[in-house]
Amino acid sequence: MTEWLDAEQQRDWRAFIEGSIRFIDLLDRNLQEQHGLTLAEYELLVRLSEADGQSMRMAELAAVAYYSRSRLSHRIAGLEKRGLVRREPTADDRRGVLALLTEDGYRTLRRAAPDNLRTVREHFVDVIEPGDLRAVGRALRAVISRLT
Amino acid sequence: MTEWLDAEQQRDWRAFIEGSIRFIDLLDRNLQEQHGLTLAEYELLVRLSEADGQSMRMAELAAVAYYSRSRLSHRIAGLEKRGLVRREPTADDRRGVLALLTEDGYRTLRRAAPDNLRTVREHFVDVIEPGDLRAVGRALRAVISRLT
Repeated sequence: MTEWLDAEQQRDWRAFIEGSIRFIDLLDRNLQEQHGLTLAEYELLVRLSEADGQSMRMAELAAVAYYSRSRLSHRIAGLEKRGLVRREPTADDRRGVLALLTEDGYRTLRRAAPDNLRTVREHFVDVIEPGDLRAVGRALRAVISRLT
Repeated sequence: MTEWLDAEQQRDWRAFIEGSIRFIDLLDRNLQEQHGLTLAEYELLVRLSEADGQSMRMAELAAVAYYSRSRLSHRIAGLEKRGLVRREPTADDRRGVLALLTEDGYRTLRRAAPDNLRTVREHFVDVIEPGDLRAVGRALRAVISRLT
């Protein structure tokens, strides 16, 4: 039987789950209203924009995209339909599929990034004490290590 | 123009968004696989179970449920269909609607809670340094204050 959380752990845990769900929901809503992108789509465009040749194999993208392979395919298909991403077979491996950021995808990302940053600053980075923000970073890096 | 994040803020911010999305996704996946509930549904059942008479007006529930009113109605309708929640008019106000946790809803929640707690402990509370967990609590309470 798993031991119940003590009162302080419970309070901090509840703050995390409520705050992060609500804040992630706000990021998602703002991106959708202002730029027609879900947060998950935005994050995929960011990953591609940072990659060599602004492209990644679907298998690599799945490894850094947090989501299951089937949801990734679904999202990439949605982005492709809107001309923001293109898929093509890899040159060296017939079975591989490459996802590329298109010119339009890059322009969309460049428009969305400053607005997203504003939400991140105004509702997260600038309201958290610097020392606490560093602790949040350490804490979530520990969570990520446990997940992988 | 919003100022860009410095390298450390950027690193901590990226850890937060990646870690929280992935961890919330894990909670959601485990609840769905083990108990047929999404995390959002589970959280609604928790709120009802903690309320007086295990019931809340839809308007009150909307205020604590993080989500927009339309998504809340949709989720409550889904829970009602499975017999976990019941809706009825409030006694004192003809226009009000009350959401009640049913016996089945309570039993489902009691089965799901220990498994959910295990995920919370093993992937979050027990992998984070106690001081950092307190900082996470402070940080997310500041985020919640800014949102409301």
